[in-house]
Amino acid sequence: MRILGLDPSLSSTGWGIVEVENNRLRYVADGFIKTDTKLELPARLAIIHQKLGEVIETYKPDEAAIEQVFLNENPASTIKLGMARGVVILAPALYNIPVCEYEPNKVKKALVGVGRAEKSQVETMVKILLPGCKPKNNDSSDALAIAITHYNYRQTRVIK
Amino acid sequence: MRILGLDPSLSSTGWGIVEVENNRLRYVADGFIKTDTKLELPARLAIIHQKLGEVIETYKPDEAAIEQVFLNENPASTIKLGMARGVVILAPALYNIPVCEYEPNKVKKALVGVGRAEKSQVETMVKILLPGCKPKNNDSSDALAIAITHYNYRQTRVIK
Repeated sequence: MRILGLDPSLSSTGWGIVEVENNRLRYVADGFIKTDTKLELPARLAIIHQKLGEVIETYKPDEAAIEQVFLNENPASTIKLGMARGVVILAPALYNIPVCEYEPNKVKKALVGVGRAEKSQVETMVKILLPGCKPKNNDSSDALAIAITHYNYRQTRVIK
Repeated sequence: MRILGLDPSLSSTGWGIVEVENNRLRYVADGFIKTDTKLELPARLAIIHQKLGEVIETYKPDEAAIEQVFLNENPASTIKLGMARGVVILAPALYNIPVCEYEPNKVKKALVGVGRAEKSQVETMVKILLPGCKPKNNDSSDALAIAITHYNYRQTRVIK
């Protein structure tokens, strides 16, 4: 069973794939989708959609997980994050891959054991829990952390 | 030349198509995409994406227009609107159809002549400017109003 972890943002969306074999986790792949800030918004959304489709076609995940959204104080930033998030959630939905959502604290708790862990602690745990994995950047490391969280919980939280 | 007007929302996305012939506007079609609130978010986004794709395939618009977003005071609502908006903007982008954005006041001004017009005045003007058109509901009427606005301005405002 393969899990796709997703960390959406307009400028750089992280993704990570882990595999569950005999109740053990194995690293498969990770990466990030950067979009040029000089491009128009519709083109940036199209790039996220297309690249994420390629990731899904290549690695064929069975389930997907995403972090519950961080609500920015700035409404303009919130709407941008929302647009990226909508396009990111759409990709697995079009392949009938269920998408589960986890609170940031749950991700930290699943990885480090406490809900208020530092970002660097989460990254360290990603490397420990997925031997041989060297995350490409922070975004893909976060995406792997979300995939690991989903493996730990596997409770299909309905996103509404 | 055909223009697709779009009024995105998670529960009901309005769309409207107008055609420009010899510098005159003609009504082509309008409608709305409703999604069941009982469905999970990913499924709702997939419905918007698929139905909008059908609209584009059927009517083959050359350009698209969308109203600049109304920033809700409630961040959770803003993120939902953002997600619907992202998926809506993605649809024309995947067909390389340029998407322009207009401020709500500009839409009102283009239709009624003043920026602080009532919603009902805008609807009345949609019917006057597009003879024979009976908008299916408020959302599709708003979408037609945005298409008309684009015809009036046709200034390719870059969305960033």
